Amino acid sequence: MRIAIRGFGSVGQGLAEVLRDEGDRIRREESVDVRIVAAEDSSGSAADPDGIEPAELLEAKSEGPLASGRWTASIEDVDYDVLVEATPTDVEGGEPGMSNIREALSSGTHVVTSNKAPLALSYRELTELARENGVELLFEATVGGGMPLINLSRRCLAGNEVTSIHGVLNGTCNYILSRMAVEGLSYEQVLSDAQELGVAEADPTYDVEGLDTALKLVILADAVMGLSCSYDDVEVEGITGITQEALRLAGEDNMKIKLVGTVHDSRIEVGPRLVPSDHPLDVPGVLNAATLSTGLAGDITVTGMGAGSIETASAILSDLLSIPRA
Amino acid sequence: MRIAIRGFGSVGQGLAEVLRDEGDRIRREESVDVRIVAAEDSSGSAADPDGIEPAELLEAKSEGPLASGRWTASIEDVDYDVLVEATPTDVEGGEPGMSNIREALSSGTHVVTSNKAPLALSYRELTELARENGVELLFEATVGGGMPLINLSRRCLAGNEVTSIHGVLNGTCNYILSRMAVEGLSYEQVLSDAQELGVAEADPTYDVEGLDTALKLVILADAVMGLSCSYDDVEVEGITGITQEALRLAGEDNMKIKLVGTVHDSRIEVGPRLVPSDHPLDVPGVLNAATLSTGLAGDITVTGMGAGSIETASAILSDLLSIPRA
Repeated sequence: MRIAIRGFGSVGQGLAEVLRDEGDRIRREESVDVRIVAAEDSSGSAADPDGIEPAELLEAKSEGPLASGRWTASIEDVDYDVLVEATPTDVEGGEPGMSNIREALSSGTHVVTSNKAPLALSYRELTELARENGVELLFEATVGGGMPLINLSRRCLAGNEVTSIHGVLNGTCNYILSRMAVEGLSYEQVLSDAQELGVAEADPTYDVEGLDTALKLVILADAVMGLSCSYDDVEVEGITGITQEALRLAGEDNMKIKLVGTVHDSRIEVGPRLVPSDHPLDVPGVLNAATLSTGLAGDITVTGMGAGSIETASAILSDLLSIPRA
Repeated sequence: MRIAIRGFGSVGQGLAEVLRDEGDRIRREESVDVRIVAAEDSSGSAADPDGIEPAELLEAKSEGPLASGRWTASIEDVDYDVLVEATPTDVEGGEPGMSNIREALSSGTHVVTSNKAPLALSYRELTELARENGVELLFEATVGGGMPLINLSRRCLAGNEVTSIHGVLNGTCNYILSRMAVEGLSYEQVLSDAQELGVAEADPTYDVEGLDTALKLVILADAVMGLSCSYDDVEVEGITGITQEALRLAGEDNMKIKLVGTVHDSRIEVGPRLVPSDHPLDVPGVLNAATLSTGLAGDITVTGMGAGSIETASAILSDLLSIPRA
């Protein structure tokens, strides 16, 4: 299986690390040789039709931009079976992921992506384009890092209708709210700590205002519940208004305050919600959790690391391995 | 897809109810017509090569044994694509499930089962027999009711090694321990209540002594971690010795006592363990939870209803729908 990786940041490099460290085992256990034939960062690309050793690619990247000349071929020069689209999420238009995905699908290339924006903005168009071209468009990595949610629903809960979704889908928000509750610190204090620890971005808007949760929720609503919705349909409220006083009062009733995304009766909402302390959605720290309410199997909750380069690469890998081999 | 159901108790009837109530939707959404051509209870069997309406089968069962003469054919007279083996678990030898499964696999018939004993006693033999005959042996329903664990690991975490398993896998034990802790009641008081409510059996030995958890754990160890183990390899301790005092002391440290099954470093153990109150395995009431520790995706915890006839039928249905159609 020849893959090209567009977007060689944290997730793209995570996938290369996994293939470097686990490639032999995967070849043995899964009977498939996943070979990187091209990788592209914002500087340009490196390519070799016979495959690039992941270790060599990572070493080159650690020394500078990929387009620096170690490889003479570029991504346009090679054929590949699957595009791994791992460019950053940009909710204003979804570029460059949107064009990358459209181009690959239109030319009959499978796509596995971790980029939320294209799916959250144009789910119907892109899934339809994949169908028309007879190729796969897989995106487990867009929601919940290594936690299986989309494939879980499609493959493991076949025969079930998912009637609602409740999720704690942003690790940064959960970390901030958990520490505020446990340590009695202010939002500003914990945010500042989280930024130092790398748990929050320098500009945390995207996480703390609920936008990241909203994007993930739209993808779940489309993929798991079959709703036809877009990012603009979500009512969003973030966590910046949560006070210590609110958390203390919740704690007195044995409740937590969590940033919860909800899809129910075709309404899609993100906002702070009270969650009982023994509820499956009450997860600590940077963990994520999501409950799928189903017609037959009852409520199924999945909990795990919702982010991380290796965890997200794991979701990409499981999508890659599910593509039918010719 | 023609199915025969052997064992027409709670789970078998649950499957018939699901096919009665959801058959139209499943035909439409999954493009497969799951048709019951035979059903067998301890009295004998009913069969019709053209299929038996689930509603008629359930009505007949509510009036008495299946062998009472409404159908002139029996299970030996009809052909079917899949055997649904739903006879009760008997850990002493695994019959009648063991013989039913062997017979079906040997004659080239797929098997979907909810019966724990045959798998926990003879995992290697039965999976090898399925492989030799080119048919599926699927058993998601043996562990955790409607919770996907086996298929989750195989299909949704492809490329990952599962390195350990920790599970709260018996709803009766979890119900008893939860109520003892919250209400300060004795083991005997809660057990008696649970028996009246139908949450515990008249003879609760199989649940409270940890045997049910041990069977499920062996199946997970074999199926998810590739260990080659059997029921006899498990060290088992139940919950009958847990006192209010022990639960109170745990509570003072913000801990719960749960009956936890563990597979780690090839050791398989079932026993009471301390679990922190915000840990994903701290689930209330009759809920089950299991954590799969993976090499790449981190710890993935699944929580849900670990029992129930419809929930278990849901797992059987998802297995049925995953069988490749000719």
